[in-house]
Amino acid sequence: MKYWSDLVSSIKPYIPGEQPQDGGYIKLNTNENPFPPSSAVIAAIARACNELRLYPPPMADELRDQIARYFGIKPEMVFVGNGSDEILAFCYPAFFVGKAPILFNDITYSFYEVYSELFSVKYRKVPLEADFNIVGAAFTPPNGGIIIANPNAPTGVALSLGEVEAIVANNRESVIVVDEAYIDFGGESAIPLLTTYENLVIVQTLSKSRSLAGLRVGFALANPQLIQALARIKDSFNSYTLDRLAIAGAKASFEDEEYFARTRREIIAIREQTASALRQLGFVVLPSKANFLFASHSQMAAKELYEKLKGVGILIRYFNKPRIDNHVRISIGTAQDMRDLVVALRLIIGA
Amino acid sequence: MKYWSDLVSSIKPYIPGEQPQDGGYIKLNTNENPFPPSSAVIAAIARACNELRLYPPPMADELRDQIARYFGIKPEMVFVGNGSDEILAFCYPAFFVGKAPILFNDITYSFYEVYSELFSVKYRKVPLEADFNIVGAAFTPPNGGIIIANPNAPTGVALSLGEVEAIVANNRESVIVVDEAYIDFGGESAIPLLTTYENLVIVQTLSKSRSLAGLRVGFALANPQLIQALARIKDSFNSYTLDRLAIAGAKASFEDEEYFARTRREIIAIREQTASALRQLGFVVLPSKANFLFASHSQMAAKELYEKLKGVGILIRYFNKPRIDNHVRISIGTAQDMRDLVVALRLIIGA
Repeated sequence: MKYWSDLVSSIKPYIPGEQPQDGGYIKLNTNENPFPPSSAVIAAIARACNELRLYPPPMADELRDQIARYFGIKPEMVFVGNGSDEILAFCYPAFFVGKAPILFNDITYSFYEVYSELFSVKYRKVPLEADFNIVGAAFTPPNGGIIIANPNAPTGVALSLGEVEAIVANNRESVIVVDEAYIDFGGESAIPLLTTYENLVIVQTLSKSRSLAGLRVGFALANPQLIQALARIKDSFNSYTLDRLAIAGAKASFEDEEYFARTRREIIAIREQTASALRQLGFVVLPSKANFLFASHSQMAAKELYEKLKGVGILIRYFNKPRIDNHVRISIGTAQDMRDLVVALRLIIGA
Repeated sequence: MKYWSDLVSSIKPYIPGEQPQDGGYIKLNTNENPFPPSSAVIAAIARACNELRLYPPPMADELRDQIARYFGIKPEMVFVGNGSDEILAFCYPAFFVGKAPILFNDITYSFYEVYSELFSVKYRKVPLEADFNIVGAAFTPPNGGIIIANPNAPTGVALSLGEVEAIVANNRESVIVVDEAYIDFGGESAIPLLTTYENLVIVQTLSKSRSLAGLRVGFALANPQLIQALARIKDSFNSYTLDRLAIAGAKASFEDEEYFARTRREIIAIREQTASALRQLGFVVLPSKANFLFASHSQMAAKELYEKLKGVGILIRYFNKPRIDNHVRISIGTAQDMRDLVVALRLIIGA
C-alpha cells in the first residue's frame, strides 16, 4: 500500500481469539477466567476515579511496591506494563536487538515471532518433541536470548523448576525470558531462581489467574539492571502505560489473597474434571498446568470440532498451523460451562 | 551494562515532568486540566467494571464508533491508543521505518527524536524562527515523513489551517503526522483536510482538553489505509492497548459536549488573563493556543524562576535545552491557582 513502510507491509500481526461482544457465547477461546475479579478490585477502582485528571505515576509505584511485597523482593526488581504482552515486546529492544539469533520453541505463543519481526530480531525455532514436551537441552549457546512460555501455550505443558534452572544456568551470557502467564494454575514459578541468576526475566499477567483480562496489567521480575533496561524502553515509547484505574485495581487484587487462592484452586479442580470427561469421550488430552486443555480426537478433525461447537454457541480455539492443526484449545470456564461443553461434545462426537 | 542491547544503552529516554504523588504542590508543570472529567465519565467507568474478567474489544469498537460520529467521519478512519504517545510511536514503524530522513522542528515535543532512535528512523531537524514560529516552507521533499505539533510544544504557537494544508500539499509523497494534543484550546484542527489528503494523520488526546491524563487515551484520524497500518503495528505489539474502563470512560467524555465546551472555554479565558498579568510583571509571553504559556523574563533566569516557584510549592516546567533554556512553561490551572502564581511571581521578581 502507498505510504506503508516495508515493515508494516511484510509483518504478519498476531491474531487474537475471537472477541464477540454480544455475550451470546459460552466463551472458552481466550483463556479468560470464568470468575469475576475480587470485589476489592472494584472498590479500589471507584476510589481511583477521583484523580483521573492527573497523569499516573510513570512507574506505577504503588503497584510496584505491592507486587514486591507480595513476592518478598525489592521494588527495583519489579516492572509493570500494559499486559504481559507489552512487557514481552519491550524485552526485544531492551535485550535482543542487534544480537545473535534468539531461541524459542516452534510451537509456543505466536507473538514471540511477531515481536522478532517488529524489532528486526533474528530467531531460530527449537522444535518440541512429538508429544509436545519442551527439550530444555536444545537451548544452547551461542544465542542472543531465549524466550520460553512455562507452562507452554497453547499446549499447557510445563517444565519443572529444575528444567528451567538448567536452561538459565546453561546460557549465562544471554537473557532468558520465562513467560509465566499461566503459572498460577499448577506450574512451578522460576521466582526462587532470581536471587541466583542475573540473566533471568520472569513475566506474569493479571489477565488469567486474577480475572483481569479487561484491565491490561502484567509485570516482570528480574534483577534491577534488567528492570532498568525495560524502564528505559518504556520511557522511550510511552511514559505512562498504565492508567490510574489499572494501577489501583491491580494493587487491590494482590491484597485479596483468599479470593485468589480459592478461585485458582477451583479452576484447577474444574480442569481436572473436564480432562477426565474429555478422555472418556475419546479425546487425547495433554497434561495441563494452565487454565486450558489442549486436545485432539481421532474420530473428528479439530477444525470440524471447533466449527460444530461454534454452531451450538460454544467458542473454543482452533489454530490452523503446522503440527497443531488437529488440536483444539479449550479454556476452563465455570463447572456449568464445562458440563455444557461435555454434553455438546458427546452429541457432536456421537459417543 | 551487561545484557543490555546497544540500543537500550545508547537511547536517551524522554523525561516527563515531575509527578510528585503527595499532592502538596500547585501543579502547573505537565499541562493537566485543572477541572475533573465529566461526571458521565465516572458513571460509565463504574458500569464497565462488570466485565473486567473479559478481554476488551481489540479495536475498542464502541469508542471508535463514538469518535467517528463526533467528527462526522467513518469508523475506519479512527484508531485509538494508550495515550497519543503510543499512537505517535506506532507511526514510526507504520510509516517512517526504512525511508528517507523524516523532518520535525528543532524545538518541539522531544519524544519525536526519542521515537526516531527507538525505531532507527533517520531524521533532520527543521529550525523554528527566532520568535519560535514554525516555517512551513522549510518542510520540503524529499523526506521520509513529517511530524508537526500544532499548536507546537512547548511554545504553544499554532499554525493556521492554511499553513498546515500547504505543508501537506507540498509533501504528497510522504505521511504528515499532525500532533494536535493541544488543538482544543483555540487552534484550527486539520480535520477538514482529511477528505482531500490521503497522506495526513491527525493525532489527538483526551489527556488535556478532556481532563483524562490519568486514563491514557488518544486517537488518530486518517484515511482507512493509514489507519490499517497503525492497526497492523498495534496487533504486532499488544492486541489490547486500551482497557475496558478507558474505553468506557473515553466514550462517555465525547457524549458530554456541554461540559467539554464549558471547561475549555474557561481554560482559554484563564490563559488570557494570566498572560496579561505575566506581561504586566515584565514577562515576554508567546501567543499561546494551548493550555500553557511559554514565557521568559529579562530580570531573572528561567531556571531560577522554576526553582524559586518550586520552593514556594508551585511546580512549573523548565527545559535545560538549547534555545529554550531561558524560558519556562506554565500550565493553565484554576483561576485561583493562577492568582497564586502571579502573587508568588510578583514577590520573586520583586516587581
